[in-house]
Amino acid sequence: MNKLYVVGIGPGAYEKMTIEAVEALKKSDVIIGYTVYVDLVREHFPEKVFLSTPMKKEVDRCVLAFEEAEKGRTVSMICSGDAGVYGMSGLMYEVGVNHPEVELEIIPGVTAATGGAAVLGAPLIHDFCLISLSDLLTPWEKIEARLLGASQADFVICLYNPSSKKRYDYLEKACDLMLRYKALDTVCGIVGNIGREGEEMKVMTLKELRDTKVDMFTTVFIGNSQTRKINGKMVTPRGYRNV
Amino acid sequence: MNKLYVVGIGPGAYEKMTIEAVEALKKSDVIIGYTVYVDLVREHFPEKVFLSTPMKKEVDRCVLAFEEAEKGRTVSMICSGDAGVYGMSGLMYEVGVNHPEVELEIIPGVTAATGGAAVLGAPLIHDFCLISLSDLLTPWEKIEARLLGASQADFVICLYNPSSKKRYDYLEKACDLMLRYKALDTVCGIVGNIGREGEEMKVMTLKELRDTKVDMFTTVFIGNSQTRKINGKMVTPRGYRNV
Repeated sequence: MNKLYVVGIGPGAYEKMTIEAVEALKKSDVIIGYTVYVDLVREHFPEKVFLSTPMKKEVDRCVLAFEEAEKGRTVSMICSGDAGVYGMSGLMYEVGVNHPEVELEIIPGVTAATGGAAVLGAPLIHDFCLISLSDLLTPWEKIEARLLGASQADFVICLYNPSSKKRYDYLEKACDLMLRYKALDTVCGIVGNIGREGEEMKVMTLKELRDTKVDMFTTVFIGNSQTRKINGKMVTPRGYRNV
Repeated sequence: MNKLYVVGIGPGAYEKMTIEAVEALKKSDVIIGYTVYVDLVREHFPEKVFLSTPMKKEVDRCVLAFEEAEKGRTVSMICSGDAGVYGMSGLMYEVGVNHPEVELEIIPGVTAATGGAAVLGAPLIHDFCLISLSDLLTPWEKIEARLLGASQADFVICLYNPSSKKRYDYLEKACDLMLRYKALDTVCGIVGNIGREGEEMKVMTLKELRDTKVDMFTTVFIGNSQTRKINGKMVTPRGYRNV
């Protein structure tokens, strides 16, 4: 059976890839991905064939990967972060129904939530939710219900895709929803360009976050009622009892 | 400043560690961790000094790490999975307040949620929550509120610490709570011993999960309303609209 790897390459820096991910890319004849991610790994594997399709052409990219594998080549489809967190592994299984002779192997990686948490301190130590603010494929009412439900149950919340040109006010809208249950002084943090050139982090209150503009390369963290600022870092304790 | 690394070693297999984690361990004079995790890495770094403390002695383990760093040694505190997801990085910042001359660096890793997801297929593609069923440090009422809130808002849910000898019926209790909002035929999955000897996975319905006994080395996944079984794998689509 032809092998097709779906590889999470981590937040960006080569050294944040797993050994297993590096081995999969080494074994591959062809590496396929969105242009930005292809550029991140190309320099480390100069001898490989790289193929890419633009954003929003994800189905085409998956079909391309299966077609290359059907030619007998070993193929890696790469994703930033983890292949299974807002990544391509789901669509690969869906498209794979039409390509039963190709076997998928998913190689997990460090996603922006855990990569960003390491930069901020330790915001995700206790129960947390990941919510994407992109309403391209999800109705806004669903996103709203999740922001409210997660806030009411005192989850730490990590937001992916917090902003874009069209969705310039979504973070503000999300903060207003979370503020129905979370306090104004809830400890929050933002991390930009995790593991890449220009990495930056900032710890602030939820009130300040509401009035902060972020770009699409930023991951946003909202603490639970126990999250504290310790020496400039965002830290959530392990529980609700004294340790 | 003395450097103290807090390193997520991933789910267990050496090749699931990041390059950065391997480099941190190579640079270290002393590697500290819970006995089980120390045994997982010892064979790959036979020349290092290993120190460990038993379970439930986490604060002692943190103090030990800072004391070793204060002696001028380079130290790594290791955690399974990611250091920042139910890991030691939070407690290290808390204990670190008394050791201002030691600088912490958190090295993220692949947590059981994403490592297990890769084995099951692609369950975490869309918004999800991590909830620990351990009520050692968290009141059960809080866990209950989170299970209900996450189910009502149609999150994919990943359960850590689903069971123990004392908490043998907690998974059943959790399923009964989730069933207030999730359908009996919701697609679920369990993964045992992720990336270790004896790795196993099973896809089933929420009704079946309720009557399944799991051990403490199992990670449990409950789908959202869109999650499907595709060729034996658990797959959540990217959204609620046709792609």
